[in-house]
Amino acid sequence: MVHSTLQQPSVDALETIVSDLLDLQHELTPSFVPIRPSIPTALEFLRQVHTNFPVIYRAAAFDWPAFNPTSGRRWSKQYLLDRLRDTTVSVAETPLGNADAPLDGMFVQPHTSHLPFPQFMDKLLDLDADTVCYMQSQNNNMPTEFPQLLDDVAMDITWATEALNSKPEAANLWIGSSRSTTSLHKDPYENLHVQVLGQKVFKLISPAEHICVKESMLTKATYQKLSVGFNLTAETERQPWPTLDPDAVDSRDYWQSKVRVLEVVLNPGDILYLPALWYHKVIQVSDKEGLCCSVNYWYDMDFTGPLWQFANFVQSISNSLTGVDHNSDCVKDDNI
Amino acid sequence: MVHSTLQQPSVDALETIVSDLLDLQHELTPSFVPIRPSIPTALEFLRQVHTNFPVIYRAAAFDWPAFNPTSGRRWSKQYLLDRLRDTTVSVAETPLGNADAPLDGMFVQPHTSHLPFPQFMDKLLDLDADTVCYMQSQNNNMPTEFPQLLDDVAMDITWATEALNSKPEAANLWIGSSRSTTSLHKDPYENLHVQVLGQKVFKLISPAEHICVKESMLTKATYQKLSVGFNLTAETERQPWPTLDPDAVDSRDYWQSKVRVLEVVLNPGDILYLPALWYHKVIQVSDKEGLCCSVNYWYDMDFTGPLWQFANFVQSISNSLTGVDHNSDCVKDDNI
Ligand SMILES: O=C(O)CCC(=O)C(=O)O
Ligand SMILES: O=C(O)CCC(=O)C(=O)O
Repeated sequence: MVHSTLQQPSVDALETIVSDLLDLQHELTPSFVPIRPSIPTALEFLRQVHTNFPVIYRAAAFDWPAFNPTSGRRWSKQYLLDRLRDTTVSVAETPLGNADAPLDGMFVQPHTSHLPFPQFMDKLLDLDADTVCYMQSQNNNMPTEFPQLLDDVAMDITWATEALNSKPEAANLWIGSSRSTTSLHKDPYENLHVQVLGQKVFKLISPAEHICVKESMLTKATYQKLSVGFNLTAETERQPWPTLDPDAVDSRDYWQSKVRVLEVVLNPGDILYLPALWYHKVIQVSDKEGLCCSVNYWYDMDFTGPLWQFANFVQSISNSLTGVDHNSDCVKDDNI
Repeated sequence: MVHSTLQQPSVDALETIVSDLLDLQHELTPSFVPIRPSIPTALEFLRQVHTNFPVIYRAAAFDWPAFNPTSGRRWSKQYLLDRLRDTTVSVAETPLGNADAPLDGMFVQPHTSHLPFPQFMDKLLDLDADTVCYMQSQNNNMPTEFPQLLDDVAMDITWATEALNSKPEAANLWIGSSRSTTSLHKDPYENLHVQVLGQKVFKLISPAEHICVKESMLTKATYQKLSVGFNLTAETERQPWPTLDPDAVDSRDYWQSKVRVLEVVLNPGDILYLPALWYHKVIQVSDKEGLCCSVNYWYDMDFTGPLWQFANFVQSISNSLTGVDHNSDCVKDDNI
């Protein structure tokens, strides 16, 4: 086999190519998340998936019993307490509401506890507690752990199931409060996120903008809850993670100055289509009872199409330019 | 503005990234073009478009009058001569059946003549003629130049129009013979190519494999027909063009050894879905009357989605490694 005879491109040439990609993304796509007044047909939704661009379907879940005052199943603090009196839930506990988040060069994971639901609610709603609780297990908990709530919500989003020709891989129930924030990350799923109580604010960044999100290799660490406060235990394993905070973009930094953050506010009844591989940070806003609650549906993305290849290729080229090496054992991030 | 502080990736690192992309394309997609026994629904077709992978819908156009012996509109040499007796057609003439093709470092364009249809047919079917004719104008000629044939074929492919939510940008009639070959190229369209008479053999290469197709900057040149033979006049302008011949892959060449060429044979009544930005070379096989005839429909591709960005980015990175510069004035190709 004769070897390849490639030329060395200059850093300037590569920088221009990556900049051009950002410009193309910004020129060809809207600078805001469109809002549609009603649910789409399967065909309309698949066209949206094909563009890999987010959209809000306003009030599109309002037919759920969970929203209907006459259903006897309308969600509130009291309703959830009544239904889940005897349910044990898996809860992420952290000192700062920072489960799965970058902190001082580490990737910190929460302490997980298993609590009776009423005790979880007490802790969640005690704003002075030294522990911040978030029920965010993301393991298809809706059908497996909360059968008592299944009649209140949809088992799947029918137009998405029809469009994508498959049932969701997971349906997840999220119960938290304003004290928790989900740090910027991406998921390999076509995601439909339905707000039920309170609001969520999503900050969204496209896959093309990988070089802007400051991916770093972070040392994994896990919180352990002590009788007072937390201990943080580092592991040897490392994890690539975007360390950009979309709410603290440094406009003096070349690549950060080029990022476009799309912001959307999700109100009860709204469905956000969050396309596969888009970066998202999620801020919770509690309702007047102190709750922020949503249900999301993860559908398998198409791994055979251009998106998956594109995102991988952009990530590899960007990381080769910023010196991030997923396979490295040595520490690359100055903060660590 | 602070400038970017990027690191110089090694050529080896970049070569690995581009190789990984080829491997991903080959691992995640079929090594053959699937054949479907019947027409798809709009939703099924849009799922196919979303994967950006070719497929043949076998015998899917057989309901056209052009295929129906009892319609009185079945296509044959005599039928076309009858219908188009008074039509003037625009014909590409070349010495070698090589319109829009690379030749000795040039990009050669055909001599275009305007002939009465019967005279075109005489020339086309004269296998000893010193000129090879091909009616391949690709300018939406079906509805504009051939109204007499419109009742014989479909105005659009209804399931594609529904899926893509738009009428075709162009419907083109192609009439040629085994003497012409269309060289490897790509189009920014979702393409449905319907074979009517004879066969076409398509050699297909995915957009991910840009580095394998040997793109070069070629000097434009145009054939001029003389009383005997042709003259070839070079212009100053240059044109990037893939110079790989999928039928002459040099397996000792590093990147050519990695290309995957998908081959399909299109028979009368078959519809090929040729996804946007796929490279294709097309070989014609005449029917027993000496004709090869097809109709194709070009639908606008989605320029806002990942495919367009992906193909541009892959092309730019590949060209930076192989030294192809679309904006250069100096000659890069050794052949020129
Ligand atoms: O709601 C959150 O806190 C995070 C949601 C999320 O990451 C998702 O829906 O994938
Ligand atoms: O049939 C041919 O000769 C070329 C067809 C083609 O390039 C197309 O359909 O885009």
